[in-house]
Amino acid sequence: MNSALSPLALRQKVRAGEHTGDTSGFAPGFVQCNIVILSADWANDFLRFCQLNPKPCPLIGAGEPGNPALPLLGDMDIRTDVPSYRVFRDGEMTEEIPDITNLWRDDLVTFALGCSFSFEEALLADGLEVRNVTAGVNVPMYRTNIDCTSAGPFVGKMVVSMRPFKAADAIRAVQICTRFPSVHGAPVHLGDPGLIGISDLALPDYGDAVSIEEGEMPVFWACGVTPQVALEAARPPFAITHSPGCMLVTDLRNSQLAVM
Amino acid sequence: MNSALSPLALRQKVRAGEHTGDTSGFAPGFVQCNIVILSADWANDFLRFCQLNPKPCPLIGAGEPGNPALPLLGDMDIRTDVPSYRVFRDGEMTEEIPDITNLWRDDLVTFALGCSFSFEEALLADGLEVRNVTAGVNVPMYRTNIDCTSAGPFVGKMVVSMRPFKAADAIRAVQICTRFPSVHGAPVHLGDPGLIGISDLALPDYGDAVSIEEGEMPVFWACGVTPQVALEAARPPFAITHSPGCMLVTDLRNSQLAVM
Repeated sequence: MNSALSPLALRQKVRAGEHTGDTSGFAPGFVQCNIVILSADWANDFLRFCQLNPKPCPLIGAGEPGNPALPLLGDMDIRTDVPSYRVFRDGEMTEEIPDITNLWRDDLVTFALGCSFSFEEALLADGLEVRNVTAGVNVPMYRTNIDCTSAGPFVGKMVVSMRPFKAADAIRAVQICTRFPSVHGAPVHLGDPGLIGISDLALPDYGDAVSIEEGEMPVFWACGVTPQVALEAARPPFAITHSPGCMLVTDLRNSQLAVM
Repeated sequence: MNSALSPLALRQKVRAGEHTGDTSGFAPGFVQCNIVILSADWANDFLRFCQLNPKPCPLIGAGEPGNPALPLLGDMDIRTDVPSYRVFRDGEMTEEIPDITNLWRDDLVTFALGCSFSFEEALLADGLEVRNVTAGVNVPMYRTNIDCTSAGPFVGKMVVSMRPFKAADAIRAVQICTRFPSVHGAPVHLGDPGLIGISDLALPDYGDAVSIEEGEMPVFWACGVTPQVALEAARPPFAITHSPGCMLVTDLRNSQLAVM
């Protein structure tokens, strides 16, 4: 499926405006990241929020203030190498644009967070069926009643993604994802969705509903939408994120994230 | 709680007839084993049964034919060092005795299998509540509809033990027990008991029922009673096992069983 371009070649197409859509399925085997860009005076609180909430906000890389490079993640320029950006002013999205060169400032700090594509690849490689992949839809995501630990203005409830499995596969999924703490790690819940404040699985807050078959249970992972919700609550004067599904593709291999 | 005797000191008391009851809570930190003793002409099939069904029948040690020593498990004599034995003739239990010296033969082979005490200790050490320990009762065990892989005359369904946990603790329990494959490893099922053929959790086939609180789910582990059921099905002319709860206490530390 999709392109087997190297991460660098894909980023070069993105930079040239030749790839503007989502990155799911591209550069298989390589880590894709959620992106949050904040001014330096907001960055410390956000960094602390990530450290206090590592399951929804697993920090893979951070840039220096004003520097658009992330050398540990590959040869890249964060101003041009994400297919689509969302710009927020006072917590409201004001633009969705393919390039932020004109908005760059010498006080901006980039955060790259792990994303579920990496663990979905590990589940698929083990022979498990990932329903949202099979159905070709976005994974369903739900706001829960699980409080994040707040850091300054960054507060909020955890958002989770859901994938249904038979119990034995859910147990296997816990084992597989435990190896990958930097891409959300093991599930945070399984079974009764009401216990974490989800009233109807057919009505996700983000993404698309998926079928749950006889004998399957819903399994819930901490989700990278959580930091976006915290960002909306914090209402910084200026922030930039990737557009949903349009991730930063890095040179890190998913297998390099495995802790054992 | 209970005695902090060394495993060797405890075995010496057992050997001298000074400890005849169950071994739960004794020699904390050390591996206790289920015991099956068969004649050599039945031993190969049983060994194969264990290898084909490692979750219910995790083999930790095996003796040489006719040799009552298990040197890798400690300085011991299998004829005297288990507090109570059950003797089976043609599949029927005929005696329950504290010493099998008079029954020993030069064709008998001893098998030592991992037991849930080891992983319960790891769960407790992590701060999880193990309901049967809290309640001071035997863990509830159930016959399931899960087929074991047969080996010669050894056939049967898997027996499981059940411990209730909140979902987040169930996920943690999967992580902890994954480290200990030689004492049943990760759970085999969680959630709906009907999916593995259990109709009523309040009516265990062995052991004692335990309470399941609001917000908890039953979590099921492969159980060491499984090989005893297979033994009953196989009906060997002669066999000896430990009496339930009266285990062989070894010099192996539980932590030595961790694979990572």
